Amino acid sequence: MLMNFRSIKIDKLPTIRRLPAYLNILRDLFVKGEQYVSSSYLAEKMFVEPILVRKDLELTRVAGTPRVGYSIEELITSIEEFLGCSDNLDAVLVGVGQFGASLLGNRGLRNFGLRVLAAFDEDSHKARTLAHRVPFFEIDRLEELLQRLHVTIAILCVPSEDAQKITDILVASGIRGIWNFTSENLAVPEHVVTQKEDLASGLAVLCAKLVRNRPTHH
Amino acid sequence: MLMNFRSIKIDKLPTIRRLPAYLNILRDLFVKGEQYVSSSYLAEKMFVEPILVRKDLELTRVAGTPRVGYSIEELITSIEEFLGCSDNLDAVLVGVGQFGASLLGNRGLRNFGLRVLAAFDEDSHKARTLAHRVPFFEIDRLEELLQRLHVTIAILCVPSEDAQKITDILVASGIRGIWNFTSENLAVPEHVVTQKEDLASGLAVLCAKLVRNRPTHH
Repeated sequence: MLMNFRSIKIDKLPTIRRLPAYLNILRDLFVKGEQYVSSSYLAEKMFVEPILVRKDLELTRVAGTPRVGYSIEELITSIEEFLGCSDNLDAVLVGVGQFGASLLGNRGLRNFGLRVLAAFDEDSHKARTLAHRVPFFEIDRLEELLQRLHVTIAILCVPSEDAQKITDILVASGIRGIWNFTSENLAVPEHVVTQKEDLASGLAVLCAKLVRNRPTHH
Repeated sequence: MLMNFRSIKIDKLPTIRRLPAYLNILRDLFVKGEQYVSSSYLAEKMFVEPILVRKDLELTRVAGTPRVGYSIEELITSIEEFLGCSDNLDAVLVGVGQFGASLLGNRGLRNFGLRVLAAFDEDSHKARTLAHRVPFFEIDRLEELLQRLHVTIAILCVPSEDAQKITDILVASGIRGIWNFTSENLAVPEHVVTQKEDLASGLAVLCAKLVRNRPTHH
């Protein structure tokens, strides 16, 4: 099986990471009946500088009008198109430990459009999925049910030592994107993409900020 | 209270996000008695291209020697210095829901150096912290105990509606860095930094990769 670090080159990662937050704000405004939004309003809501907002929004190719702002609807459509799958984010969760289960209740993920259709685990963590009304299945049924569910995305929260074994099943069953919360680098064929999360990344950024922000008093 | 989005400008965020993974690999090699490492070895372990490794390591200012590689010890020291607090990452956890509790057991965070000295919650989630041997306290005691614990970092996993109220207590008690897992943008004075995590960010990156990686077969 091929490793895919010939990797799709993704430009503007920091901008892409901010897109869900923009979408949230824009959808809120849209629901309230607003038509236009200024970069300074978005900047205030995003806690970043207006110039960064204008740079981020270049990605959408939506042009702002001076004194009017950006069309909210155009921005939403453009961001959704850019992300490609934002309104059809059906997924399965594999591994219902404390962390996996916490994803089921995550409001930010739900707002972004994620819908977990089924959860799988070796252990019978039924209670954890029932709390979020997600059907629970024993992991032995993964292959069989994936054939039926037609989902593109799997969220992988199993113990690292099982990660590749489960990945092989996911790939064989037609999964095309794996959101990887294990510490393993997954070997997948070229038609499958993975996104590996490392919580320590955010902590490293916090550390870097702390070092650069000397206290003015104690 | 001032908002701090005059923000410390942090360059090279994607590189900083990869530093914990480099540290892990380097510390493993160091423990095994290795002295030098090549960029191609690191690239293979990191699942990225060697040229990206060489670019990332420019941040450390450690110069590699042709055919010998980089000094592992120098790289570790340099990355730890860059991150400033990587060997003294004492923290408190506020909010012991499913997600907060899952952080207590996270191996990546522990490897990076995070040590949670105490956990606080309104509800009595003692069981969740006991499982990870972290002392649990009712949230009413947050202020009192923070004065004694001398920690720099707080991990905030409370419901969003409580986020600012708790933040004010954390700031008043001497916390200088808040790792924010709520959906709130926190108002903090200038001497305090925050790092907000948005799990949907990673999902957005996965989506962007999926769109750019058309299937070659079904």
